[in-house]
Amino acid sequence: MTSENPSPARRRPGGRTGRIRAQVLDAVRAELGERGYDELTVDAVAARAGVHRATVYRRWRDVGGLLADVFDAASDDDWQPQDTGSLQGDLAALNHESLAALTASPPIVAALIAASFRSEEAARGVRRLWEDRYARCEVIVRRAVRRGELPPGTDARRLLIAATAPLYHQLVLLRQPPDPALPDEAARTAVLAASAGAFACPPPAP
Amino acid sequence: MTSENPSPARRRPGGRTGRIRAQVLDAVRAELGERGYDELTVDAVAARAGVHRATVYRRWRDVGGLLADVFDAASDDDWQPQDTGSLQGDLAALNHESLAALTASPPIVAALIAASFRSEEAARGVRRLWEDRYARCEVIVRRAVRRGELPPGTDARRLLIAATAPLYHQLVLLRQPPDPALPDEAARTAVLAASAGAFACPPPAP
Repeated sequence: MTSENPSPARRRPGGRTGRIRAQVLDAVRAELGERGYDELTVDAVAARAGVHRATVYRRWRDVGGLLADVFDAASDDDWQPQDTGSLQGDLAALNHESLAALTASPPIVAALIAASFRSEEAARGVRRLWEDRYARCEVIVRRAVRRGELPPGTDARRLLIAATAPLYHQLVLLRQPPDPALPDEAARTAVLAASAGAFACPPPAP
Repeated sequence: MTSENPSPARRRPGGRTGRIRAQVLDAVRAELGERGYDELTVDAVAARAGVHRATVYRRWRDVGGLLADVFDAASDDDWQPQDTGSLQGDLAALNHESLAALTASPPIVAALIAASFRSEEAARGVRRLWEDRYARCEVIVRRAVRRGELPPGTDARRLLIAATAPLYHQLVLLRQPPDPALPDEAARTAVLAASAGAFACPPPAP
């Protein structure tokens, strides 16, 4: 789950409504990254955004609504996985992006993931964002099939999960210090498994 | 991370102190599973445990202290991974146990993982518990090396992470509905990667 941070490249609906949304969501990310969920309030977000608090309450209602919209806005960008010319290179680049996002300072992505355990609305938002990101990453597998690196009918989602899960597992759940070798190792492991037929679709009988 | 739920097999220090600890930690797990972190209070735990609240405050101080001790107590059990006679069988059994724990009702393990994002003390506790569980699982890899299924010098931890991360990723972070095929698929993927040399130690140059 990359590209959470405010980016000038984000596609924003024009006009005042779009500008206010951008200011408010930038403020949510900044507050969350710098102060954490426990300090996150609608009033603090409104003050930081320079937007009237009544506007924020009317449009987003509460912290859960703000977080859900941060996740939804993250899907509005034009992020695409890098095209490095090889399956292993593409998966490694994806993992390097995730590692950078998870260890960025302030820790906006890490704080957003943590926040998704606090609010049902944020949890639904993060689920939609993951789905969006994995769907966009399927092009990595399609390219590899076109290059003849993978057989047609490879299960793209299972391959992508295998390649990316270890990084999130170690950093987010196991809370281990970042291991700079992990992005490449996890990519290589997934490619070796793929070459051995692990993601053939349907999976062969055991 | 399995075997979180209260179990008569848990090794408890004898005497009144040990009994009180067991009652209090059982109450923490029950409260957390049934009512969630937001409703978790020292007073509710004391009442449920039938222990004087002053005792709970003195010994555990607050909700973070209670949670940390729940994680520490989980390492006191005599849990060992199943020995099914094959690497793939052992890894699949481990994943089936995790799937059962993560989808149990009340959702104690899921609630404990969520709680670990709420309190620094609980986060340290969950980190120690993961470390304990993965250390115990290394016997799976040692047995496979002894059987000749894996080369000596296989990186046990990386293999175990590859085999188990997809399940936690899909259930805990991606919040997907449980997929009954996933435990076996993830085990099989890790075995195929291992057979292709993915976890050789040190990893060969790319």
